[in-house]
Amino acid sequence: MKIAALAGGVGGAKLALGLSHVMDPRDLTVIANTGDDIVMHGLHVSPDPDILTYTLAGVVNPETGWGFAGESFTTQEGLARYGREVWFNLGDRDLATHIHRTAMLKKGATLSQAARSIAEALGVAARILPMSDDPVPTMLDTDAGAMHLQEYFVRHKCAPVVNAIAFAGADRAQPAPGVIAAIEEAGGIVICPSNPLISIGPILAVPGIRHALRTRRADAIAISPIVGGKSLKGPSDRMMTQTGLEASALGVARLYADFAATLVIDEADADLRMGIEALGMHAVVRPTVMRTLGDKERLARAVLDIAGGAR
Amino acid sequence: MKIAALAGGVGGAKLALGLSHVMDPRDLTVIANTGDDIVMHGLHVSPDPDILTYTLAGVVNPETGWGFAGESFTTQEGLARYGREVWFNLGDRDLATHIHRTAMLKKGATLSQAARSIAEALGVAARILPMSDDPVPTMLDTDAGAMHLQEYFVRHKCAPVVNAIAFAGADRAQPAPGVIAAIEEAGGIVICPSNPLISIGPILAVPGIRHALRTRRADAIAISPIVGGKSLKGPSDRMMTQTGLEASALGVARLYADFAATLVIDEADADLRMGIEALGMHAVVRPTVMRTLGDKERLARAVLDIAGGAR
Repeated sequence: MKIAALAGGVGGAKLALGLSHVMDPRDLTVIANTGDDIVMHGLHVSPDPDILTYTLAGVVNPETGWGFAGESFTTQEGLARYGREVWFNLGDRDLATHIHRTAMLKKGATLSQAARSIAEALGVAARILPMSDDPVPTMLDTDAGAMHLQEYFVRHKCAPVVNAIAFAGADRAQPAPGVIAAIEEAGGIVICPSNPLISIGPILAVPGIRHALRTRRADAIAISPIVGGKSLKGPSDRMMTQTGLEASALGVARLYADFAATLVIDEADADLRMGIEALGMHAVVRPTVMRTLGDKERLARAVLDIAGGAR
Repeated sequence: MKIAALAGGVGGAKLALGLSHVMDPRDLTVIANTGDDIVMHGLHVSPDPDILTYTLAGVVNPETGWGFAGESFTTQEGLARYGREVWFNLGDRDLATHIHRTAMLKKGATLSQAARSIAEALGVAARILPMSDDPVPTMLDTDAGAMHLQEYFVRHKCAPVVNAIAFAGADRAQPAPGVIAAIEEAGGIVICPSNPLISIGPILAVPGIRHALRTRRADAIAISPIVGGKSLKGPSDRMMTQTGLEASALGVARLYADFAATLVIDEADADLRMGIEALGMHAVVRPTVMRTLGDKERLARAVLDIAGGAR
């Protein structure tokens, strides 16, 4: 069965890795958020596709979930010496990715073509598609001013209060080649446990993607990234509360109910099942916290079982 | 006394280093060849200004004369993994220079501004000016086809026979800010022992520079990079022969006689003195081979003495 998965970075990559281990990875398409993309020192950095690629290639830094394992930062030290702002960590091996991507883009290649070149070189069998080849930067309106998501995330360490989230340019963006087809052709669609607002949200904002998902609602399974009212990783919970949403699996259900028939929630949230089902979704209780590779594979198998049964 | 020196890379940097040690380096302006500049992986690489900067900053690799001492090549290994051509060696620290320069150019800065930023960050007191902010790539017509100088040099290791040398775009190029003034204001002008055809030649090809030098002919001192009919470094001798010139200090004298009143030749070439003087130049015999720092300082002092006497 072919699977199309929507994912952001570290959290989504955990389930994507699990999926790639328990199915033929050539049948897996991961549609990656590119709202985090940013130009640093003139280089196009594409954090979420890279995290997914490095994770599925088995070269990711296991401690951080991003960057290469055993990375060095020699070039960045040089950049700092030249007075450049280095709040965004770029390792030496990672820089090769950004230099290669930027050089390809400069020669007229698309972001998807660059992503494919990188994934192929690192031996990734699954297909990782940027959500769009067009720029759709996620911009936050915060109490510390307007800023790019990466500034909020890395530079300000998620401290500012978020008032609103905008996907700049989304109205003019097109889904990257293969994205809509992957959704249409998949036996199951997986919304990974990524931040609903800034990882899945940007993907949904690309015209055509949410519509395509709605036509596949019966086969779409989301996994709540909020467990017991807390995000497993990152500021999902705070951002939901700050933007007037309920930071819970029920709050996630409200965001996804129109295009996903099933929400996988953690055992800790079993009491939310009734509320979720009242939205017209199936609530399926499973262990969703992924610490070990075994956890990732177990949740991936559970998702595939649901997808198989849903058909 | 202010000195303006014209220089290419490794050979010229030896004398520039000597000069910077035996005079107030703030009175030294080095006008650097940028005909070697090349875009690699989308990054603007400026070999000769960088060699001069690293050398004068004391951070150059003493074994090669280019790149940083103790350099690593992690990013380049990554670039190779992505299938990129890596015939031009780019170390991790060196890449910071190229990334910084390229980012500055992308933001609208000039090559001179980038060069100044790099030199200041590395603590160079002398002024290193690119010959021009405009692109003037040195292109060679060889028996293996037309190629950029760096391809000939690095990729083909100087093996092809050179039929002709062209400085593409030179007719539209302007001297970088400060270049003409440095020549006009200097007490002495030094033509470093760099390749006359592809290091000094491109500088002379920028409209206005040769004319400015001619007006200062009496104070201009060239040092022959050919000793005993052989170039001290690189393919100067072969290139001169292949392009129909005599590979000797006399051949160098013929190229420089119109704008330099003095040619410093090695003791090994003392017998060429008469021929050089017949061209209207003073031939001054000095030890010109620079192996140690002491050699560099000694030749620099000799040149300053000549410059002082010539006034």
